[in-house]
Amino acid sequence: MYFLENGSVTSPKGFLASGVHCGLKKIKKDLALIYSNYLCNAAAVYTKNLVKGAPLTITKKHLKNGVARGIIINSGNANTCNGDRGLEDASLVATSQAKYLNVDPSDILVASTGIIGVPLNTDLIIDSIPKLTNSLSKNGSIDASSAILTTDTIKKECALSFKLKDKNVTIGCMSKGSGMIEPNMGTMLSFITTDVSISTNLLQEALIEATNISYNRVTVDGDTSTNDMVIILANGQACNDKISEKNDAYYTFLNNLKQVTLHQAKLIAKDGEGATKLILCTVKGAKTINDCEKLSKSVIKSNLVKTAIFGSDANWGRILCSLGYSGINFNPASVNLSFKSNKGEILVCQNGSSIDFNEEKAKTILLENTIEILVDIGDNDTSATCFGCDLTYDYIKINGDYRS
Amino acid sequence: MYFLENGSVTSPKGFLASGVHCGLKKIKKDLALIYSNYLCNAAAVYTKNLVKGAPLTITKKHLKNGVARGIIINSGNANTCNGDRGLEDASLVATSQAKYLNVDPSDILVASTGIIGVPLNTDLIIDSIPKLTNSLSKNGSIDASSAILTTDTIKKECALSFKLKDKNVTIGCMSKGSGMIEPNMGTMLSFITTDVSISTNLLQEALIEATNISYNRVTVDGDTSTNDMVIILANGQACNDKISEKNDAYYTFLNNLKQVTLHQAKLIAKDGEGATKLILCTVKGAKTINDCEKLSKSVIKSNLVKTAIFGSDANWGRILCSLGYSGINFNPASVNLSFKSNKGEILVCQNGSSIDFNEEKAKTILLENTIEILVDIGDNDTSATCFGCDLTYDYIKINGDYRS
Repeated sequence: MYFLENGSVTSPKGFLASGVHCGLKKIKKDLALIYSNYLCNAAAVYTKNLVKGAPLTITKKHLKNGVARGIIINSGNANTCNGDRGLEDASLVATSQAKYLNVDPSDILVASTGIIGVPLNTDLIIDSIPKLTNSLSKNGSIDASSAILTTDTIKKECALSFKLKDKNVTIGCMSKGSGMIEPNMGTMLSFITTDVSISTNLLQEALIEATNISYNRVTVDGDTSTNDMVIILANGQACNDKISEKNDAYYTFLNNLKQVTLHQAKLIAKDGEGATKLILCTVKGAKTINDCEKLSKSVIKSNLVKTAIFGSDANWGRILCSLGYSGINFNPASVNLSFKSNKGEILVCQNGSSIDFNEEKAKTILLENTIEILVDIGDNDTSATCFGCDLTYDYIKINGDYRS
Repeated sequence: MYFLENGSVTSPKGFLASGVHCGLKKIKKDLALIYSNYLCNAAAVYTKNLVKGAPLTITKKHLKNGVARGIIINSGNANTCNGDRGLEDASLVATSQAKYLNVDPSDILVASTGIIGVPLNTDLIIDSIPKLTNSLSKNGSIDASSAILTTDTIKKECALSFKLKDKNVTIGCMSKGSGMIEPNMGTMLSFITTDVSISTNLLQEALIEATNISYNRVTVDGDTSTNDMVIILANGQACNDKISEKNDAYYTFLNNLKQVTLHQAKLIAKDGEGATKLILCTVKGAKTINDCEKLSKSVIKSNLVKTAIFGSDANWGRILCSLGYSGINFNPASVNLSFKSNKGEILVCQNGSSIDFNEEKAKTILLENTIEILVDIGDNDTSATCFGCDLTYDYIKINGDYRS
């Protein structure tokens, strides 16, 4: 397995993409298209927020038959909380795109991100569909991955290749997500393309498993968005023996898919609104993996932990505190706690109590850009890592007046 | 019923207080004592954090007999995560204070707030006990209410008086709390004194009920502290007929106690670390009061809502979003949403959808210091109000390097 240089959603065989400016945003590109030359088996996972964006409802409907050809995505407007009009608008966008591509309307999926509660200007989108469609190309992924961004500061894309017997299989991905990111996918959009040949059922199962250990373990601000969605399209052009049972090929594909989603999850966490540092919190030894995950999320969500890491302050008491209110039962007197980065590792709490440690060394470790918080809580052979970022002045700046 | 001018914990008959600098903090007062000339019935509620400060364990032990005479409180060090030594230290502080007052060790309760995981310097406290005790007075509440503060910017105290038949009853209170404040009492300490005559059981019951609708509905940053505690002492000096059943006198007392705790809860929310605005979110019409409370807390905890209010931005979509991920079931299409302040009230979302509203008027309303978010979610006769504050640059500043 290896990650491709400049890998993207068009790295797998048979996929094209494009991105244009349609006018929902003032200057930046705001409309993207991913398209497969061949019909794909397709699967998706959606936000758990009770308030759901209209595009999610339409995508879900279009995915009932388990196949799709493409995805049209706009930024600048989430098309959420717009009542029946929102549903009609999302449907109109998908249908208009399908018509221009001469494919079945249900083969086009739709996603939106941006402000909530403002009706979508569909005229702007529909007027741009010809240009969007005509600029589909392998290189179009460069524009597409820009057009889906909101407050993101970096593009988030990758691709990797691996072998299934003698066949080369590629998985590509582009994502957006910066604020309103929480366990269970806050305004996080991720579009995965692959040329593997696999049944829709197993594609769905693999997507859920990969999402659970990656995107669902990212939190930036504890706000679960209304519009989160991960979609995967598999067009079979790698010509491997079709995966239709949980054989070795399935697990090879699953593990590689996990590599892609973990890579993207870290990029999203690192680019959290205003973030200067990526934080990884690994909790080991709780009763179940699920308990490890809940404990880890509780740490990574804590504003007090996030600000301490921003200040490169080894204030481990806040970590112990956030473990304590996680709702998971454990013995506080069994907790060992370390900080780790490129500059080394330092134990700061042993058996739940303070120990003497070298503050200067801790500071050196915490001044790095990627900080690992390692929590050892018991003897069980369990572990989970969650991903987050620090909380900074810029988070306030970005979110204090988002709409102006 | 009326609030007293300059009311404090020494307003009720028979209570004295004092506050001194013992050296746990560099300059500011850091040690306080509340003392009753008469034995009190006493009750307390504690943090739900699994990691609990040593002082809570000792106070709980000393309250087993349901009576107490005083409370010694230090700031600057939470005496938490210090293992067995922490328990010994908390016990030593209470015992030393009791000895100097010539009362039973179990009659002195103990509370601490400040940094976690640093052993408590008990020598500093014990050396200061004579001075602390000898300065007990009615006016001593001024020093006491200062000595319990950490990052608080204002003192939080009040007292009110009311009649039970021909007897004047007074309830006084002092609190601290600014950061690490969450539903279920984040580093929040509150000490209530009253001269009412009441059984310990009913005192405990009233305290729980008053806490549930006030302190437990405050959130600043979602972090539930290890050291939160509310203690109430009732010395019976009002000479009312002792309340030993749930009669009219009990409910009169309970309602007045609620007035005190609500007053303090708002002060704590308003003084949230870095806050410029008090936010009150009232949710009406969910299935149960508990559902209303959970929905309201979800709004008031949202970093995105908090930053929008900081920016006086009527970004109501974030409110709908935070209702949606609260875990409570409701019909998003039934939600009406208004902002309210001294400058008026404005409806910004009707039936879960965007409506045209006057942005300028909304801005004028949101520029005020106290902002009410009114959420109407259904026809049920239920309601709950939670208290919070905006999220600002200063929160980051205060918490980015707390220990230096």
